[in-house]
Amino acid sequence: MTTTSLPTTAAPTGAQDVHPLLSERWSTRAFDPEHVLDAETAARLMEAARWSPSASNTQPWRFALALRGTPEHDALFGTLMGFNTAWAAKASALVLVAAERTTPEGKDLRWADLDAGQAVAHLTVQAAADGLVVHTMGGFEVDRVREVFEVPGGVEPLVVVAVGRQGDLASLDEKSRSRELARSRAPLSELLLPLRGASA
Amino acid sequence: MTTTSLPTTAAPTGAQDVHPLLSERWSTRAFDPEHVLDAETAARLMEAARWSPSASNTQPWRFALALRGTPEHDALFGTLMGFNTAWAAKASALVLVAAERTTPEGKDLRWADLDAGQAVAHLTVQAAADGLVVHTMGGFEVDRVREVFEVPGGVEPLVVVAVGRQGDLASLDEKSRSRELARSRAPLSELLLPLRGASA
Repeated sequence: MTTTSLPTTAAPTGAQDVHPLLSERWSTRAFDPEHVLDAETAARLMEAARWSPSASNTQPWRFALALRGTPEHDALFGTLMGFNTAWAAKASALVLVAAERTTPEGKDLRWADLDAGQAVAHLTVQAAADGLVVHTMGGFEVDRVREVFEVPGGVEPLVVVAVGRQGDLASLDEKSRSRELARSRAPLSELLLPLRGASA
Repeated sequence: MTTTSLPTTAAPTGAQDVHPLLSERWSTRAFDPEHVLDAETAARLMEAARWSPSASNTQPWRFALALRGTPEHDALFGTLMGFNTAWAAKASALVLVAAERTTPEGKDLRWADLDAGQAVAHLTVQAAADGLVVHTMGGFEVDRVREVFEVPGGVEPLVVVAVGRQGDLASLDEKSRSRELARSRAPLSELLLPLRGASA
């Protein structure tokens, strides 16, 4: 068996007590090409995103849901750049997530990107709850998205989320497989902003 | 009992099938002032945030963790604006979340705010898993945060997350209580970006 040395969980050292919907998540590139995302599950993923919190309930997130085999998928997949095209075709769906940074009335929404990120995370957690996996990509042509989808001027395309069922890591090439296994984060101490004078 | 007409779940119509860690979440203003956030739980919340995904694993999130009764809390609470000061003091902790939009080397991180939003959501989900509730605020003085915390120039303070145990909704004034009960979202149809020509 070539897969026996591969991890059965991605829960990283130090995060074992974190809820498994969070700790066992990683951004795989190995999707199962046989999996089809049914309409009910797709709707549930979008419901999870839609009920995210946002500043003053402004709900700045916008989406395009593209199930594999549809014209939306052909259009969205065609905007992906570089290495993403090598693995993302096997995902069961792609979801474009955009943020309304400026309303039609010209009001700037300072937390539009942050709130879109909350929606991405809610979708990701729901995917895990449904036994699915997710890989969020920034590598796509924003101008091309605007050519193929009706994106209002104040709305900024931000990420494309690949959703599907975990595939066999052994199907990946050596480089991709090594990237699956290499989860790492900076220690919390490097992320904390101290009080002024506290470090004096 | 004045509380019998208050909801025991916030799961909104249409989202019943979404995982309860997501569907039963709402941004309460009723925190239990008796609750103390222990160090272990606080560390777990930060672990959940720290293991969020980010563009090319850039990890642009920065935090200040302020447990009620500490100098950090006094400093961070002092930056809150307006109505937030009326209820947020009862929360067990405040967490400042900032985004490194520009690295010390001068590189712009396009997805810094979005990734900070993912970290906020992961913290929020972990809080729910620990039986806690969260209310994320944008209403604070950014300049004042920079005066009291050591915030590098390329790092933008974005939100303050109040964390604690759910308090009695009946303790809220009438206006605040009505806001607890009024969860609403735009229908998905208003959030979807169609293919060009699809609506013709």
